[in-house]
Formats: sequence, structure tokens, C-alpha cells
Amino acid sequence: MDVNTLAALLPDGTLVTDPDILAGYRQDRALDPDAGTPLALVRPATTEQVATVLRWAHEHRVPVVPRGAGTGLSGGATAQDDALLLSTERMREITVDPVTRTAVVQPGLLNAEVKRAVAEQGLWYPPDPSSFEICSIGGNAATNAGGLCCVKYGVTTDYVLGMEVVLADGTVVRLGGPRLKDSAGLSLTKLFVGSEGTLGVITELTLRLLPAQPPQSTVVATFSTLTAATEAILEITGRLRPSMLEFMDSIAINAVEDELRMGLDRDAAALLVARSDAPGEYAAREAELMVSACEKAGATEVFATEDPAEGEAFTAARRFAIPAVERKGPLLLEDVGVPLPRLGELVTGVAEIARRREVLVSVIAHAGDGNTHPLIVHDPNDPDETARAHQAFGEIMDLAIALGGTITGEHGVGRLKKAWLPDQLGPDVMALTRRIKDALDPHGILNPGAVL
Amino acid sequence: MDVNTLAALLPDGTLVTDPDILAGYRQDRALDPDAGTPLALVRPATTEQVATVLRWAHEHRVPVVPRGAGTGLSGGATAQDDALLLSTERMREITVDPVTRTAVVQPGLLNAEVKRAVAEQGLWYPPDPSSFEICSIGGNAATNAGGLCCVKYGVTTDYVLGMEVVLADGTVVRLGGPRLKDSAGLSLTKLFVGSEGTLGVITELTLRLLPAQPPQSTVVATFSTLTAATEAILEITGRLRPSMLEFMDSIAINAVEDELRMGLDRDAAALLVARSDAPGEYAAREAELMVSACEKAGATEVFATEDPAEGEAFTAARRFAIPAVERKGPLLLEDVGVPLPRLGELVTGVAEIARRREVLVSVIAHAGDGNTHPLIVHDPNDPDETARAHQAFGEIMDLAIALGGTITGEHGVGRLKKAWLPDQLGPDVMALTRRIKDALDPHGILNPGAVL
Repeated sequence: MDVNTLAALLPDGTLVTDPDILAGYRQDRALDPDAGTPLALVRPATTEQVATVLRWAHEHRVPVVPRGAGTGLSGGATAQDDALLLSTERMREITVDPVTRTAVVQPGLLNAEVKRAVAEQGLWYPPDPSSFEICSIGGNAATNAGGLCCVKYGVTTDYVLGMEVVLADGTVVRLGGPRLKDSAGLSLTKLFVGSEGTLGVITELTLRLLPAQPPQSTVVATFSTLTAATEAILEITGRLRPSMLEFMDSIAINAVEDELRMGLDRDAAALLVARSDAPGEYAAREAELMVSACEKAGATEVFATEDPAEGEAFTAARRFAIPAVERKGPLLLEDVGVPLPRLGELVTGVAEIARRREVLVSVIAHAGDGNTHPLIVHDPNDPDETARAHQAFGEIMDLAIALGGTITGEHGVGRLKKAWLPDQLGPDVMALTRRIKDALDPHGILNPGAVL
Repeated sequence: MDVNTLAALLPDGTLVTDPDILAGYRQDRALDPDAGTPLALVRPATTEQVATVLRWAHEHRVPVVPRGAGTGLSGGATAQDDALLLSTERMREITVDPVTRTAVVQPGLLNAEVKRAVAEQGLWYPPDPSSFEICSIGGNAATNAGGLCCVKYGVTTDYVLGMEVVLADGTVVRLGGPRLKDSAGLSLTKLFVGSEGTLGVITELTLRLLPAQPPQSTVVATFSTLTAATEAILEITGRLRPSMLEFMDSIAINAVEDELRMGLDRDAAALLVARSDAPGEYAAREAELMVSACEKAGATEVFATEDPAEGEAFTAARRFAIPAVERKGPLLLEDVGVPLPRLGELVTGVAEIARRREVLVSVIAHAGDGNTHPLIVHDPNDPDETARAHQAFGEIMDLAIALGGTITGEHGVGRLKKAWLPDQLGPDVMALTRRIKDALDPHGILNPGAVL
């Protein structure tokens, strides 16, 4: 396919074929070794340019792989042979309306940039993936991203009131808007959230905002067994709604301590970091409740702090767990979730899988909402270990499904997990999904090979 | 079509053709005079029976009109000639899980029954349509119902984590589940919420619950002009997130006072009832902020109370406004919403339409989220007045659309408002909607004539 006919429809520099530049866009953070060689990279700056790209692609039946900041962990943005890569990185406008507490944002802004822009108006955009400093808001919407505060504040879809989206044939539609309530027609806005670029390209989002989050109290607790830690989680969530409830296992504790030297207890089997943002002194009161819940569950050490900097340091330590464990070797990064009462079985089951497959698996978790990230460390130059790592990767998803859970809580299915999707959803839901996909993208040009 | 072949597939008494019984099911609260004569009423007690009905209907191309408690205000459950009416009233099971804070409910339970069952476990299901004592939870999901607390707590879709739904051909699918985070596949759960029975019949819902709501402080304020009242609304929402922020105009105040004799100020142009459920004394502090916001906007009288019974009395008075105004004559009930800064223009614009069309229109509103219910009183035996009422009904929707709003915030489009849906959504979104409808219900048997 001659991409010059497309380049001619776009401003100079929008379409790139330089192999050196393309090389930097072939993978996302899933680092799929089988990433293809794209026809070209397009970096549209406007919705109209996105529409031009999709009209051309639709007419010529050229696949399009949409891409935010490339921080996806499931290979949703892995380049395909003979496809266009469509990066939204140049679409970076934002307007904040403090009266309706909404922001209208373009997809290329980073999550952190959105947070900062709305904070200037005293407002807060809650969803907070650990990668919030480097992931795009468009990618967040495409994967229905989560984060640490979701245990209390919900996920991306809970904050998307409307969007502009370019459909497979280049048609531009506006869905929803800055209204908390809207029952007019099908809930199409919500359908596009989490669709991973398979139904359209999001070119604008209308986000619901909250007043600035109050200062948080923080509780840190260590446990000598995984079971005690998961019991503490249920004790806490049974008493109140923490604004954060995070879990790290022994491997993660030690990996973080190796890097940050914070004085974490290297002998602990698990560490919890929990926070409350209840107003005023209620944060400290909730922290007290969480301390006693941890003590009841047999914590070896518990302490609470109202110092925001100290609390943020422990939160940052938890966020740092993935890069810290990654120093031990490349990761296969899981994202399985279960209903909260099954969390203990999931965590102990993952340990059993690691033992059986003789691979190192560190478990960190957004424990309060049952969403875990088992990190499977492996040496890609060791084919046997790599094979065992991939076996463990699949077995952990099988376990999550068996426990009534999901193969992905917040990263998306992408290409890395699509083989397991039918096991979770079953043939009838897969068929239903396929009918919607075919209705909206009849030639299958949008992110082919992802999800379905 | 011989419905005996369907009756034979169902337990005795499930399918009813007695015209006297059918008569009670031909309309919902929209009281459409053009309601058709259905083939039969089916009242399945199980998902399998719903599937049997739909398989039969699909095979024989018989339209099916799903129905909850029949309290819909947009004619979404209006009977059609030669169609089956499918009532979910016999599906009334509920299980509550306090650990995951979720409830699994069947669609025939009333909203109030769900609230009561979860309250027994110290939990709260927030969405609270004014009709909560008589509307079904299945109907709430089908219309993405709202209510009074939505200004702080969101609408039905924000609480639906999963569902079981029977598709047009009788296939039973389970979507989502008791997990706050789930990015596996398309967000199909959310697509079915608000689909008004056009995509499938919901047979079970998994609902997210919150801890019991704290006691609320209540502020009541009266204003001598509509403009002062709408300014107060913006002053309040600019300062905090009330747990309720309701509006009644002079007609509604007087209609309620006629019935309840509460001592409301009959000379006021508008009355606001606002509440805060912030923890402990923060509720009273937020009430103080709301009092000063009302004073700043020029309220003629303002008072705050921490007495829950007194606060509930004013809330009940606001809920009673629709039946109270209805004593003046049958209502055409609007449900238009606008972005909050346009609320003043909407309210004054509605008054202008009422004047021009010489009809009585009372405006009550879930003011904090911009969702208003202009109540158009008319005498159906007066053809001229009825015509003017319907002209006003349409003009109010035109106005809402012109102000960037929606023709329905929480009641749904049904049959009453479908003529205006293309004006709001535009041809491209209508075409997109039609593609999804056709993909999921190729023979168009599900609630034909509603929405689309």
C-alpha cells in the first residue's frame, strides 16, 4: 500500500516512515518480541486529521493500531505488519470547568498532566495508575485504567461523561457530555471506554472531577504470613472504605528496600499500606480503625501517620515495587483480580504456581479491590525459564478465572491475554462481543489482533 | 400467532391472556392512550423461563415488550399490538454480600426493597428515584435511573458491576461480576444499562453497595426570584458536593403546601432543599456553607437543621411535588437536563414557553445535577389545551438541546420522547445506535418502537 496518498492528505510531518523513528513505536511496555513492521506512523494533531487517516484506512482496508503513550502492559499497541500506527501524542489540549467540575481533554495528555491542570482549579481527577506520570489519558480510557484510589473512587469509566470518537470509517461522533445524568439513547460512551482501540479512536474526553482530595492518614502494617495480611484486608474493608489499600509481598518489600533503604522489615511476609482521606480528624479515626483491624489479624508491626510526606513516601514505595522487582530481570506482568473474599486463595495459589514452575513471582496488589499484579521474573535468554514463566502466566489467569475473577483488572486484554479471554467470558459473550465489533468495524481495520 | 404453543412451554399461570388482567398492563405511568392490545402477558419466575419466551418470540418473530413495575414515565413499557408483554415482577430474589459490599438481585424487586434488604447488613444502595417505593430495580437498570442523591453519588450505571441478560434469541449471558475492576473485553454490562429493553432482558444484577449513609444536615431556603435560586445552586455546588440539592418552583411549593400544610412560604418564587452527609459535625459545617451560599444569592429565608426527621420531612415534601401538582390535572412529565451553568436559562426559558403556550408548567428539579422535571398540567378533555401542552413538551426538549443538554436525564426515551432523540444525538450517533441494535436484535423483536 502506498502511504504517500495518505501523507498527501495530511500536514507535513504527520506521517512518518523513517525506520529509526518507527522502531521506537513498534512496541508498548509489553515488549512483544513479535511486534510487526508498520507501514507508517501517523501523529495527527486534530480530530479531522484522525478522521482523514481512518477514512483512508477504511477505503484501502489498511489496519490501524491506535496508541497513546505506549505504556500499555498487555500489548494493545503492538505494531502489526503492514498496519498504520496512529499515535495521539500530539493531541494535548485541555479545558477545565470548575462550575460543572468537568474537564474536556484530548487523548495525548498524560494522566499526571490532567491531574495537575485540574488541581490548579482546586479539583481532582481520581484514577491513578501507578504509571500516571507516563501514561496517557486516552490510553487510560481505552483500557478502563484503574490505580490505587479505585478501592474508594472507582475506575476510569466512572469519570468519563462523554467523548468524541472517530469510527472505523472516519465518521466523527460526539457521545454524552458534561451532564451527570443522561438517559438519551444507548450508553455508547461507556461502551467505548475499555474497548482498547477496537471500536474507534477516542479524540476527546469529557471527564467528571471531584473537589481536591483531603489530606490522608496512612497506616503501614507488616505480617509474618500471607494469610494474616489477607485477613487484615477483609477486616479493614469490612469496617470502612479506605482511600487506598495496597499489598506487597516479601520479594517486593526486599526489592524496594534494596533500592530505597526506607527501613522496611525485610523479614515480613507481607506489607500493607492503607490510607484514609475522610475529612479532618476522621482520617485519623479511620486510621485507628485500620490499625486495630491489622492488629486483630495478627500484624507484627503497625503504625499510623498523619504526616502527608511520610504517607506519600510509603505510597511511592508501593508504586516503585514494579521497577524495583524488574531489576531482578524482565517481568511478565499479571493483572488478575478476584472478588475480595477469594484474595487469600489467589495469593497463596500464585505462590504455589511459582513453586511448581520454579519461577520467581512477586505479588503486589491493589488489595482493597481484589486486583493483583503477580510479577513473573524471568531471563529471556533462558528458553526453559521463559517457557516456565509463560506457563505460570497462563496458570495464574486460569486460577483467577476459577476463583470467579478476571484476567485483567485494569491493564486490558491487548494481545498478551487474548488467548484467555474466551475462558473468562465464555463462547456466548465472545459471540456477542464479535457481533458488536463487526457492526462497528466491518472490515476489521481497528487494532486487529487485540482483544479478539 | 397462537400463544398456546408458548404457554405449553411454561409453567401454568405464567402466560395470561385474560383481557381484564392484560388491561392492567397495557400502559406504564406515561398513560399512552395509543397503547396497543398485546397477544399475551408472560410473568416468568426464572431466567430459563425468560429464555424460553425469547427463543419462542425470536423463532416466531413476535415482538416482546419488557416491563418492570410499570412506573416508567416515557412509555418504554407501552403495550404494542400483537406483542408479548414480559413482566419481571415474579423475579424477586436477593442475596447481599457484606464482605464485597455487593448484592445480587433479580429485576422484579422494588428499589425500596433492595434498599431495605441491604440496610439490614448496614449497607446502602444509593440511587433513589422519587418513585423508589414503587419502581423496580430492573426498570432502574433499563432506564439508567437517577434520583435525588445522584448529585453526589452518581446514577444507576455507577452501581451496576455485572448482570445476567437474556438476548433477543434467548441466549443467556453473564457480564461482569462482583469486581470493582474488570477490563476483560468490551464494557457490555454498561451497554445494557439504559438500553430500555431494546437489547435484551435483564434477569439479574450485581450491584455495588456503600456503607450506610451518615445522618444528613438539611438546609431549606426560599427565594423571591428564579434567578436568585439558580444562582444559589451554583454558589453551593462551587463550594462543596451536597448529598442532595433539590428545587421547587412557586406552583410546586403551593401544590405541596395545599396537601401537606407544612408552613412553606407560598409567596416564594422558588425553594431549595439541600443536604450534606459529610461525617459527624462536617455535615453541619457543610450546611453552614450552604446557608451562606443561599444568603449570598439573596435568599429571603434560610434555615438549617440537623434533625433527621425534619430534614426527611422536607425531602418527602419535594418527592411529593409530582403527585401534588398532579392534583391540578394530568401531567406531561418532562425530564430534561442541562450542564449546570445553563440551569438558569432552562428554568426561565421553560417559564417563557409556558406563558407563550398558555399552559401551566411547574418546574421541580434535581437542581444540583442540572436535571429538571417541568410538569405540564393539561386537561386531556380539552383538545386545544392538550395540543398546546404537547407543543410545550416538545419546545422544552428543543430548549434543552439548544442549551447543550439532554431530553432525558433519568426516565429514558421510551416512546414519548423518541421523536426528539435524533435532534439530540444527530444522524451519525443514531446510525451507530441502529448498527448495535441490528447486531444484537436482528429481527427487531425487542421493545420495538421504543427509543429507536
